[in-house]
Amino acid sequence: MLQEMLKDSVRTKTYQNVIYQNKFLFKNKVVLDVGAGTGILSLFCAKAGAEHVYAVECSHMADMAKEIVEANGYSNVVTVLKGKIEEIELPVAKVDIIISEWMGYFLLFENMLNSVLYARDKWLVDGGVVLPDKASLHLTAIEDADYKEDKIEFWNNVYGFDMSCIKKQAIMEPLVDTVDQNQIATNCQLLKTMDISKMAPGDASFAAPFKLVAERDDYIHALVAYFDVSFTKCHKLMGFSTGPRSRATHWKQTVLYLEDVLTVCEGEAIVGSMTVAPNKKNPRDVDIMLKYSLNGRRCNVSRVQYYKMR
Amino acid sequence: MLQEMLKDSVRTKTYQNVIYQNKFLFKNKVVLDVGAGTGILSLFCAKAGAEHVYAVECSHMADMAKEIVEANGYSNVVTVLKGKIEEIELPVAKVDIIISEWMGYFLLFENMLNSVLYARDKWLVDGGVVLPDKASLHLTAIEDADYKEDKIEFWNNVYGFDMSCIKKQAIMEPLVDTVDQNQIATNCQLLKTMDISKMAPGDASFAAPFKLVAERDDYIHALVAYFDVSFTKCHKLMGFSTGPRSRATHWKQTVLYLEDVLTVCEGEAIVGSMTVAPNKKNPRDVDIMLKYSLNGRRCNVSRVQYYKMR
Repeated sequence: MLQEMLKDSVRTKTYQNVIYQNKFLFKNKVVLDVGAGTGILSLFCAKAGAEHVYAVECSHMADMAKEIVEANGYSNVVTVLKGKIEEIELPVAKVDIIISEWMGYFLLFENMLNSVLYARDKWLVDGGVVLPDKASLHLTAIEDADYKEDKIEFWNNVYGFDMSCIKKQAIMEPLVDTVDQNQIATNCQLLKTMDISKMAPGDASFAAPFKLVAERDDYIHALVAYFDVSFTKCHKLMGFSTGPRSRATHWKQTVLYLEDVLTVCEGEAIVGSMTVAPNKKNPRDVDIMLKYSLNGRRCNVSRVQYYKMR
Repeated sequence: MLQEMLKDSVRTKTYQNVIYQNKFLFKNKVVLDVGAGTGILSLFCAKAGAEHVYAVECSHMADMAKEIVEANGYSNVVTVLKGKIEEIELPVAKVDIIISEWMGYFLLFENMLNSVLYARDKWLVDGGVVLPDKASLHLTAIEDADYKEDKIEFWNNVYGFDMSCIKKQAIMEPLVDTVDQNQIATNCQLLKTMDISKMAPGDASFAAPFKLVAERDDYIHALVAYFDVSFTKCHKLMGFSTGPRSRATHWKQTVLYLEDVLTVCEGEAIVGSMTVAPNKKNPRDVDIMLKYSLNGRRCNVSRVQYYKMR
């Protein structure tokens, strides 16, 4: 997984470009790297001229990061701190920049956003920079007959036995997978934008309306969510998208299968809302509620579906 | 994972064939299914004419299995018991057959073998049948320059930084992956055979010598372990192999990368021993020690390497 993330060049190269192409942001600045992992982002910042970088990592990777920083001759610039951001102490009063790669699947699954916001409120100087500072969640709809047949309807007949009760469970679990852009049958709708430099932790829970208009006659088997992040404090806007029309990342997309197959004609709209909140028992799980209705020429459907990402 | 295992047709079809083609084993017999999951093996047994099947499953899948048994009209034959095999009570004194799909990666990783042996000693009638009753572990050696370069040497230069300290960790972790049979450069050596109907739990820890003779001039980057299981109580011998020359299964193979690249000439032998034991702190982890030496025309190597599967 560690290597998969580093080899995700959309992810790692974007951070590298943001840092190397915007050295003016880092020159003589103190940086805090939240969830530093191997320390790669801290090393990028050090190489870009940061005065000092505090790399905070709570897992055993912190020991590796220390070795890596030393092996690369940056011990005088990068200090690795092993611990939780909520518990560590920094030897400075404030930092100028907070950098983090905190995003999870579906942006919010098992994410470190709350740690970034905590770090921001406690350690970031007034007017300091958060990288990235914008994240947005998008929704679209796809035709996916083959996959739904293969993965969901599979349970109807398993070596001759009816296991359809598992189907109900299976459909409630969002699937992280790569969607072919040719499957997209509607527009893409912006659901929610988060301003990481200003938002409150609670803002990651939201309800957002959507309207997905069919761009062709087709069948809709699933809605697909994905996110973009951007770095608006760069010389020019930088960022990346994890959408099905962009270069693939390790985040892929998140597929929410519908109980019904919707028969849509070009121009017809699926209207509804998506509600997203951390699960109350396990805050690292994400509860998703989807309300949708279609008043189509061929069929009318209105339904509420619940999903849990875990 | 559940679906991946069911769709592994080498696995599931072999069990199905063992049961459906050997109805004489099940006729009027009481069966205990250890780690029943969805209950698929229990249903096979019921359909094959078992008098009664006790399906023991400790996870939440037990609730699903109950629903599935009911939906398929086998409630009078299959009883699902939710709990650990070590804790449940059966309404019968003894069972005639114990069936289980207990094998993990590398046969022994996170396996349920101890539960099967416990069930055998507590619940199986004298002369009863264990399915499968034989499991064996095999070893061979492969050329794998590309993958080793891609996955291990990767750490030498990560976006311009030296992370080679992670390499030492990476090489100690056995890799579960599919090996192309064309990569095999030596014979395959049987390391260990286990008789599930007789063995003691401690017999899953062992030290076994091996001698791998090069079948061509080549470079050796890794040793590869895989297992076979067989059902010797069938009318004719049945079973399957998870080796690189057999049809792929979800178990794939287990690749142990060597620190050295061994330069072998046809006929030269890598001799050594493999020691396997559960980790003392976390018995579900497996510790593997590999001692090997090559007295080759081109190089001489002798080394001890430790691996941990977790």
